[in-house]
Amino acid sequence: MDPRIIKELRDAVGAERVSTAAEDLVAYAYDGTWAEQQPDVVIHPQTTADVAAVLRIADAQRVPVVPRGAATGLAGGALPVAGGICLNLARMNRILDICIPDTLAVVQPGVITLDLQKAVEKHGFFYPPDPASVYQCTIGGNVATNAGGPRCLKYGVTGDYVLGLEVVVPGGRVLRLGGRTIKNVSGYNLMGLFIGSEGTLGVVTEVTVRLIPKPAAQMTALAAFPRLADACEAVGNILQAGVVPLVTELMDRATTRAVEDFKHLGLPTDVDALLLVAVDGDADAVTREIAQVAVILERSGAREVRQARSAQESEALWEGRRNLSPAIQRLARNKLGEDITVPRSKIPEMVARLADISRANDLPIIVYGHIGDGNLHPTILCDRRDAAIMRRVEQAAADILEAAVALGGTLSGEHGIGVFKRDHMLRGVDGNALAYMAGVKALFDPHDILNPGKKLPFD
Amino acid sequence: MDPRIIKELRDAVGAERVSTAAEDLVAYAYDGTWAEQQPDVVIHPQTTADVAAVLRIADAQRVPVVPRGAATGLAGGALPVAGGICLNLARMNRILDICIPDTLAVVQPGVITLDLQKAVEKHGFFYPPDPASVYQCTIGGNVATNAGGPRCLKYGVTGDYVLGLEVVVPGGRVLRLGGRTIKNVSGYNLMGLFIGSEGTLGVVTEVTVRLIPKPAAQMTALAAFPRLADACEAVGNILQAGVVPLVTELMDRATTRAVEDFKHLGLPTDVDALLLVAVDGDADAVTREIAQVAVILERSGAREVRQARSAQESEALWEGRRNLSPAIQRLARNKLGEDITVPRSKIPEMVARLADISRANDLPIIVYGHIGDGNLHPTILCDRRDAAIMRRVEQAAADILEAAVALGGTLSGEHGIGVFKRDHMLRGVDGNALAYMAGVKALFDPHDILNPGKKLPFD
Repeated sequence: MDPRIIKELRDAVGAERVSTAAEDLVAYAYDGTWAEQQPDVVIHPQTTADVAAVLRIADAQRVPVVPRGAATGLAGGALPVAGGICLNLARMNRILDICIPDTLAVVQPGVITLDLQKAVEKHGFFYPPDPASVYQCTIGGNVATNAGGPRCLKYGVTGDYVLGLEVVVPGGRVLRLGGRTIKNVSGYNLMGLFIGSEGTLGVVTEVTVRLIPKPAAQMTALAAFPRLADACEAVGNILQAGVVPLVTELMDRATTRAVEDFKHLGLPTDVDALLLVAVDGDADAVTREIAQVAVILERSGAREVRQARSAQESEALWEGRRNLSPAIQRLARNKLGEDITVPRSKIPEMVARLADISRANDLPIIVYGHIGDGNLHPTILCDRRDAAIMRRVEQAAADILEAAVALGGTLSGEHGIGVFKRDHMLRGVDGNALAYMAGVKALFDPHDILNPGKKLPFD
Repeated sequence: MDPRIIKELRDAVGAERVSTAAEDLVAYAYDGTWAEQQPDVVIHPQTTADVAAVLRIADAQRVPVVPRGAATGLAGGALPVAGGICLNLARMNRILDICIPDTLAVVQPGVITLDLQKAVEKHGFFYPPDPASVYQCTIGGNVATNAGGPRCLKYGVTGDYVLGLEVVVPGGRVLRLGGRTIKNVSGYNLMGLFIGSEGTLGVVTEVTVRLIPKPAAQMTALAAFPRLADACEAVGNILQAGVVPLVTELMDRATTRAVEDFKHLGLPTDVDALLLVAVDGDADAVTREIAQVAVILERSGAREVRQARSAQESEALWEGRRNLSPAIQRLARNKLGEDITVPRSKIPEMVARLADISRANDLPIIVYGHIGDGNLHPTILCDRRDAAIMRRVEQAAADILEAAVALGGTLSGEHGIGVFKRDHMLRGVDGNALAYMAGVKALFDPHDILNPGKKLPFD
C-alpha cells in the first residue's frame, strides 16, 4: 500500500492505532476457517469518528476495508482477500448503556456476546442470541452475520433483537438507523439491510438491542431415536402440543460416537439420532412441559428418554452437546462445517441426501444442528494436505448446497456467505433478487471498497 | 389517462379486471382517513402475472400505480394522490397453504388478517399480529405498513412473522425473497426492505408467515391509576418481575370517560389512567402470573385492580378497550389519530407534553395506546368544516411529532408515513439515512411510478 495512504490514515486516527508490523499482519490474517490472507495494514479504531475517517480515506483512495470483530466467522467473511485495511473493531468494546426502564442495551460493536449476556443477567434480563462462539464472538460480528445459535426456534436470531444501529458507510457518512422502540415504520428499513450484510455495505459502530425478562427456569430431556426421521417428527409433535422448545439439538450417530469416544458420558451410540430438547419459562410450567415433552418423544419413537429433574441433571445432558466441537476436531486433521437450512419437514430427506453425498464423494460427513430451525451443520472430515481429497470436499460441499436449495432451503442459516459460498449464490438466490442486491451494494459502496469479494457473486 | 394505455391494460389482464366506471373510481377514492382522491382506472389482478403485466405497462408509460388492500390505512398510503392506477389486491385472497410440519402459512396479499388467524387456530396455531382493523385489513397491507397492534411487546410486529415474500417491482420483474425457514443469511435482506415500504418499492403478491403454537390460556387485569406515570412504571415493574405481558393498554381519563359515557361499564372515570394488562401461555402459569401482575399493579400505585378470574371476566374487562373507537367517534365530528412511539420510560413526559400541546392549540387531545411498546395514539378531536380549527389541528399534529422525536421516539409506530407525515420525515429521520432511502427508491422504482408522493419527503 502506498506509504502516503498509510501516513494519511495515521494522521487521521493516530499513529498508535495503525500498524503495518509484520507480526500484526500475520495475527490478523486468520478467521475461523482454514483460509489465510494478510492485510496491508491493521487499524484499531476507538470511536465512530475514527471509523468514519478510515472509510473516508479508503473510499477516496480505493483501498479495500475489511471490518473484523473476533474473526470467529466460518465463511471467510473477515479475511482480507484483497489485502488493504483490516479494521479491527475489537477495541470498541464498551457497553454504553443498560437501560432497564426501556429494557434495552446500547453497545459498541466489539462487545463480546457473552459479556453482554452476563451484564444484562445481573439485572434479571436476557439477551437470547447464542452462537456457539459466544465466548469470543462480538455483537458487531453477530449483526454482520445475523448470527443465530440453538435458541432461534423460540427466540429468533440476532436481527430480532436489534432496535437501532449506527453505521458508517464508505465515504465516511454516519447513519443513525432505528432507535429505542420496538415499533418504527418511519422510512425504509435500512437497518434490516445492514443486518446480515457481512460488512459489505457499512461498518456498524453502535448497536441498540432489546432485552427480555430472564426466564425463571430451564429443563432438558435427551432422547435416543433409532430412526432419525422420528426425531424430526418429534419436534413437530412438540410444537403441535403447544410447547415451543428453547432448543432442539440433533446429533447423528457419528456425532454421538465422536462425543462419546471423547468424553465417555454413557451416551447411546447404537441409535441414528440423539435429540436434546430444552424448555424454559415459568418454573412450574417448565416442569410440566418437560414431562409432556418426554411423553411426546417416547410416542414419536424414542427408544429411551433421559429427563433432567434438576438444573444439575440438565447440565449433565448438555455436556455432550457442549463437547461436540472438540470431539469432532479429534476425528480428522481438518473439517469443513456447512450451515444449510431446509424447511423443517425436509430434514429427514436432507439427511438421507447427505448420506448419498458422503458415499458418492467417499468422504465422512457427520451431521448435527438446530433442527427446530431446519438448520443443519453437515461437517465434512478431510485432510487439507491431500489435494485429491480436497477436490472431493469441494464437490461434496457443492452437492450439499445444491441439495438444500433443491429442498426449498438456503445456502446459509447463520454462518454467512463470505468468500466460501459466494460462487453458489447464483443458484441459491433468486436471479432477479440478486440483480437488486448488486444495486444495493453499488448504492452504499459504489467503489467496492468494503469487504470486496464477499457475499455477492460479482466483482 | 390515455385510452391507448387503458386498452393495453385490458389486453394484458382481461377487460373484466379493468374498470373506469365512475362508480368504481368513487369507490376506490377512499382509505381509512378523511382524504379522498379518485384514480383514473381500477384494476383487479387475480395472479402474479396480472400484477407483473400492470407494472410493466405502467413503468413503460410512466403511469402511477397505487397498490391497495382493504384501504383501512390511517396515513393516506392507499390514496391515489397522483391519479393513475388503483391496483386492488383484495381479490387475491386465497390461503395457499397451511403447512403444520413447517409451522407456516402461505397466503395471497388480499387475505384478511382475521381469516388467516382463524384458519390457523383450527390447527392449534397462532398468528399473533393483531392490528385494530383485523376484521377488514389484509396481510398485504399489514406487510406494507409492518402493522402492529396491542400484542407487540410480547410477540412483535408483522415483519417478525414474515419468512418469505414474492414481490413484483416496477417493470414487472418478480422477486422471490426469503423462504420457508427462520434462519436465512443468503444475500441481503431485501425482504425486510419491502416490509413497511408502504407500496412504494414493489407490490407484494405472496406472503409466507411463520406460526407459533396457540397459547393455552389468557387472563386479564384492569387497574385504575390516579397518576398516569405510575401506570407506565407498572409496566416496567411487571417486566422486571419476569413477566412479559401479552398487552399493556393504556387509556387516559378522557378516553375512559368517552367509553363509559358510551357503554356504561362502570369504569372508574376519576383517575388519570386505566391500564389493561393481559398475560397468556400455560394455563397454570397464567393464573399465577395474573395474580402476580395484580400485586405489582397495586404496589405501583393503582387505586383499584380488577382481576379476571375466568375467560368471561376477561372478556368483560376487554369490553371497554374494544369500544374505544366508536366511543371516541361520538365525541366530535372528526378526529385525527396520531401514532407516535417513544422509549417506554418517556411516556409520562410525552403525555405531559400532549397536555401542553392540547392547551397551546386549544384542541381536545385524548390519549390511549400500547404503552409496553411505547406506542401512543394521541387523538385530536376536531371539525373539518372549520378552517381555523383545522389549521390548529395541523399545528398540533406537527407539535406531537416534534415532541415524540425530541424524546427519542419516531413519527409512526404502526400506521405508516403515507402522505400525511411525509413532510415531517426530514426532521424525524436521520438526514444521511434519508439520502440512502431515496437511493433505494430510485433503485427499485427509477421512474417513480409506485405510490408516488408517499413515504419519502421528495418528489
